[in-house]
Amino acid sequence: MKKFEHLFEPRAIAVVGVSDDGARPGTQALRALVKNGFQGGLFPVNPKYPTFDELPCFASVDAIPEAVDLVVIGVPASGVLAVLESCARKKVGYAVILSGGFRESGPEGIERERRLLEIARAAGIRLLGPNCLGFANIHTGLYAAFGSITRPPKLQRGAVSLVTQSGGFGYSIALACAEAGIGFRHVIATGNETDIDTIQLIDALLDDEETRSIIAYIEGTSDGRALLDVGRRALAAGKPLLLWKGGVTEQGAKAAESHTASMTGTYDFYRALFRQTGIVEIQELHEAVDYLLAFEGRRYPTGNGVAVMGVSGGSAIVFADAGERRGLQLCELSAQTQQALAGVVPNIGAVHNPIDLTAGYFSAANQVKLEAAVRATLADPGVHALCVNLATTGQAGSLAAAQVLVRVAQESDKPIVVFSSTPVAENAQALAEFAKGAVPVLRSPSRAARAVATLADYRRVRERLLAAPAAADTGVAKAEAGAEAATTVQAGRALSEAESKAVLAAAGIPVSRDVMVPGPGKLAIEGLRLPLVVKVVSPDIPHKTEVGGVRLGITSQAALDEAIAEVLANARRHIPQARIEGALVSEMVRGGFELIAGVVNDEVFGPVVVVGAGGIYAEVLKDTSSRIAPFDEATARDMLDELRCRPILDGVRGAPACDVGAIASALAALSRFAWAHREQVREVDINPLFALPDGVVAADALVVPL
Amino acid sequence: MKKFEHLFEPRAIAVVGVSDDGARPGTQALRALVKNGFQGGLFPVNPKYPTFDELPCFASVDAIPEAVDLVVIGVPASGVLAVLESCARKKVGYAVILSGGFRESGPEGIERERRLLEIARAAGIRLLGPNCLGFANIHTGLYAAFGSITRPPKLQRGAVSLVTQSGGFGYSIALACAEAGIGFRHVIATGNETDIDTIQLIDALLDDEETRSIIAYIEGTSDGRALLDVGRRALAAGKPLLLWKGGVTEQGAKAAESHTASMTGTYDFYRALFRQTGIVEIQELHEAVDYLLAFEGRRYPTGNGVAVMGVSGGSAIVFADAGERRGLQLCELSAQTQQALAGVVPNIGAVHNPIDLTAGYFSAANQVKLEAAVRATLADPGVHALCVNLATTGQAGSLAAAQVLVRVAQESDKPIVVFSSTPVAENAQALAEFAKGAVPVLRSPSRAARAVATLADYRRVRERLLAAPAAADTGVAKAEAGAEAATTVQAGRALSEAESKAVLAAAGIPVSRDVMVPGPGKLAIEGLRLPLVVKVVSPDIPHKTEVGGVRLGITSQAALDEAIAEVLANARRHIPQARIEGALVSEMVRGGFELIAGVVNDEVFGPVVVVGAGGIYAEVLKDTSSRIAPFDEATARDMLDELRCRPILDGVRGAPACDVGAIASALAALSRFAWAHREQVREVDINPLFALPDGVVAADALVVPL
Repeated sequence: MKKFEHLFEPRAIAVVGVSDDGARPGTQALRALVKNGFQGGLFPVNPKYPTFDELPCFASVDAIPEAVDLVVIGVPASGVLAVLESCARKKVGYAVILSGGFRESGPEGIERERRLLEIARAAGIRLLGPNCLGFANIHTGLYAAFGSITRPPKLQRGAVSLVTQSGGFGYSIALACAEAGIGFRHVIATGNETDIDTIQLIDALLDDEETRSIIAYIEGTSDGRALLDVGRRALAAGKPLLLWKGGVTEQGAKAAESHTASMTGTYDFYRALFRQTGIVEIQELHEAVDYLLAFEGRRYPTGNGVAVMGVSGGSAIVFADAGERRGLQLCELSAQTQQALAGVVPNIGAVHNPIDLTAGYFSAANQVKLEAAVRATLADPGVHALCVNLATTGQAGSLAAAQVLVRVAQESDKPIVVFSSTPVAENAQALAEFAKGAVPVLRSPSRAARAVATLADYRRVRERLLAAPAAADTGVAKAEAGAEAATTVQAGRALSEAESKAVLAAAGIPVSRDVMVPGPGKLAIEGLRLPLVVKVVSPDIPHKTEVGGVRLGITSQAALDEAIAEVLANARRHIPQARIEGALVSEMVRGGFELIAGVVNDEVFGPVVVVGAGGIYAEVLKDTSSRIAPFDEATARDMLDELRCRPILDGVRGAPACDVGAIASALAALSRFAWAHREQVREVDINPLFALPDGVVAADALVVPL
Repeated sequence: MKKFEHLFEPRAIAVVGVSDDGARPGTQALRALVKNGFQGGLFPVNPKYPTFDELPCFASVDAIPEAVDLVVIGVPASGVLAVLESCARKKVGYAVILSGGFRESGPEGIERERRLLEIARAAGIRLLGPNCLGFANIHTGLYAAFGSITRPPKLQRGAVSLVTQSGGFGYSIALACAEAGIGFRHVIATGNETDIDTIQLIDALLDDEETRSIIAYIEGTSDGRALLDVGRRALAAGKPLLLWKGGVTEQGAKAAESHTASMTGTYDFYRALFRQTGIVEIQELHEAVDYLLAFEGRRYPTGNGVAVMGVSGGSAIVFADAGERRGLQLCELSAQTQQALAGVVPNIGAVHNPIDLTAGYFSAANQVKLEAAVRATLADPGVHALCVNLATTGQAGSLAAAQVLVRVAQESDKPIVVFSSTPVAENAQALAEFAKGAVPVLRSPSRAARAVATLADYRRVRERLLAAPAAADTGVAKAEAGAEAATTVQAGRALSEAESKAVLAAAGIPVSRDVMVPGPGKLAIEGLRLPLVVKVVSPDIPHKTEVGGVRLGITSQAALDEAIAEVLANARRHIPQARIEGALVSEMVRGGFELIAGVVNDEVFGPVVVVGAGGIYAEVLKDTSSRIAPFDEATARDMLDELRCRPILDGVRGAPACDVGAIASALAALSRFAWAHREQVREVDINPLFALPDGVVAADALVVPL
């Protein structure tokens, strides 16, 4: 691990805050280092003791006669700054601050944390913490930590690294994984993240050869773009990144000026990011376990067709229930496959999917038959993954199955997952055999189904990224090029509807045809497609309807002139000081389906594009979907596919289908515009965006500058 | 257990189908009975052996010289009928048929199963199975079973009974529960349910004093009403009934003639029933574990306010995330509570909710403080339940906490749940202490939150039932009384829209004002509220729009007469043979919100009322809710509360609120009508049902007879 090398592989460590009280964090850390056999220099620090636990003990860090890479600080908060200053004098590279009493504990702590970072920055010290449990390098047995991490059971070596903002809950994830036989590389609690944060650590772990999967618990980040980047890097590297986002419901919807922004909350943006990067969201401990086990096989279904075989019909049904909800299908087996199965499955069984091997099938005597059945099934082109339900099969049968499945799995590029309910204590041999071949054993059929679906989802997102690795960058380039055209968008200068639509039109988003007129009598109705809409134009009137500034359904010259006069008069009466630029005469868009689209320039994520069902349903049903800008049309299609109203776009009740390609194209264009103008635009609100059988039209729009 | 007494407590058992092959079901069953110390008469049957496993072996059941209560049959399917005939001669009360090869295996098996039931009925023998794993009475050590049930680990005695249609998967549920320390009373696999079915067994278990909770896995039932009854009985008895319904996605939507029926599928009806009866739906093994543990405390939150305390901030956040999704709230603690907490919580902790006790708080030294903290929190009137997050606290601290929590829990009527991640193997003493006091220990904070929410939901449904125990019956009585009024509904006789509306109006559902006219020129427009709608009336034209049989928006006498003439002419032209009764002139209902409501007279559940958002969204968004008829207005309000469009009814964007009371009243009336006419009505389709600021109006309706 190149980044943070001397944090995770320090040559010498000082521990400040050792004491006779074995419960003190410093004492715990020192003893954990000793107990786990740290081989480098180890220097306890406490001015009260000449020696501690038989090691020479020093009065301060700078009193240590040798070079020190890492200082573990466990003194009370009030003493931490002085310790860090001694670290600065000693030119230490890294400090892990276990102590609490910083940002989390009020104004005094906030100031203390500010000073901490100041000292560290000035001295070039990188900090982990404060207010953290520390970290452990499981491969080298380095435990710079206190609390549960240092207590039994000891984590086994493995290929999973864990980074967690919450030491307590994060370690719950580690324990759940450990119970299922998952081994670890690094376990890192980041606490307040004053300096080193979760994203930097994930970034470093992606370069760590010993880390094959990463799991993280985060409560928040101030840099959504960094998370996006690291997510994409992980996907490209083929190292699954699993993430549990805590605090998803406590964060209320963001305060926002326009309708678009109120449609969604920050958690939606995290979820959008997960979908764009293949980050696997975790919301339960067993999901962490199941998906890490499943990913360990490094085989991914190339489609959604699954075959299920086993000795429990109920388990197959439960698999199908959970699988369908996640997009899997119990595929039809070919005649050839069924014929092959018929030769090795008892008559009272079933050779269609799910395949019923009949009770007691898993046994040493049946290994040859089982292998033939598994090979025949995997050879079926409709089968992209296989689930074998051992259910409550005992150890002898499970072991017999394990030997066959491990052998076949190694020669197949289709994933095999196993469901077993047999208690772990009764089944150790079989489980060890499965683990040897990285064939995941899940504890319920529904969990098995979700594991397969997660592998399939991951594969799909990864293929997209690998096929168009520069999609995002291309988008950026296009967006940057187009940025100059729309020079009317400047931070601080409000735009009227007409200007907003002109800006969006220049960015490649079709808008309805409009004519600006200064007053009645200036526009002949001939040549316009009726009916028309008349709206007052003023940068000071964002909500035109409320001031009587809109008239619909105009079909004659007289009505047009009357409407123009009326909206101008209404606007002047309601907001006398408004700068009124004239009236906008537009062709009314009719037919099609009303969507709403927009941009939120989020503090954490930067510009995010949101699309949703229009009208009252946008507000009430919250039927929206979002993606971090910029993105391509394929991603825009994904957004649309997530909408509950999606079937309407394909035409229902005899209505014609809408032009989904045009919608996707407009959304991608909007995302490029949003990215290019991220320094100027706060929000974009296109309401409605009409999805038509042939094209798409923004009938009203507002660009809100920063 | 009075019902099925000599099945579950037989005085003597014969086992037919013992053999030298230890894998045969009969052999397994006999050996399981012996090994587990069955004390009554035990008679192996096989004409080949004089003795079997040192017991006298008999040539047939009727050759046994003593009375036999139960015969366990494990011979191949082809021999089962003959064995059952010998049981009939022997006047046996019960037979458990382990053998497969019946309904599940094709036409021959179907016929064999039919004969099986015929013989049993004639002889008064009650059957469990065929094609089942049998059952075990864990309290008496009676194992009339084969397969996994008879293998280690042995289930411990306890108060949970399990009934399962799938032996294999059902036993997976039992094993998951056993692993968490849950003990059992009866474990019963029902297989094909030729005779005794899951519902009858649940009914019997409700009368079993040793059974305190029941969990069942079912794939289907042919009698939804029996399930409704047993669900209500369980709720009244305070015995939680947990149910896993398998096959929820494989069952496609029912074929149906009207729009209402196509809106929903059978699984929706199961879910409706669960909500009406407090049956707890299970969809994952750990849910079974968690909810059974939580129910064991027999304490229920009287509201949705929860306090969380512990040593892990991350765990509290995860609890809050999951809790909010299930309707729980981390309540604000009173000043008095916070003051009391301040005396026993360290300064760097937090005395607001979630309460941060700070790392290492759980210890023998802190027991007095912890007890004070817990008592103060439980005394807060806003707190209806308490979650204590031990997170990764070690055994000593966990045990200290357990001693306090068990003591306080016994004196409180508010439930306490605990989250602990500490591996079971490291924590046995603490877990035993918690189990002693029935304080549930959940394996993640989110699971703890869902357990609390499940207790709260159960309490709410139960209170409703106990407060109005005869609500359903009252409904029935009212419905029966009203049945005579609407004599126009007869099975086999199609109703026109006008007749349908008249029938529903008589049943208490407001309908729009209509006038039937034979042709143009017969109706003066004065006195009617404009605009009007004109529709052709014919029992032979269910879809009027398609034949040009509807004209909208009529505001003058001339237009009215023209419209009447036109719809009649259109109808005659399109369907020359249709019996045309005239034209229906109706006041157009305007404003309000368009719902759709209806009745499906389901084969399994009988009449079910469905309500949903109207228009295109009913079809596309499937925003519907259903309840088994009849029901009261409180239940109808629950239905409305489940709709995603529910906020619209309260008024959004300045629109007035709709009259929710009137909608509920109409739905309850519809449910009584549906129940009273269950022998005559196949479907009712009210589309649209206008929810108005003041009342509700069915603007169009069709009653489809059986």
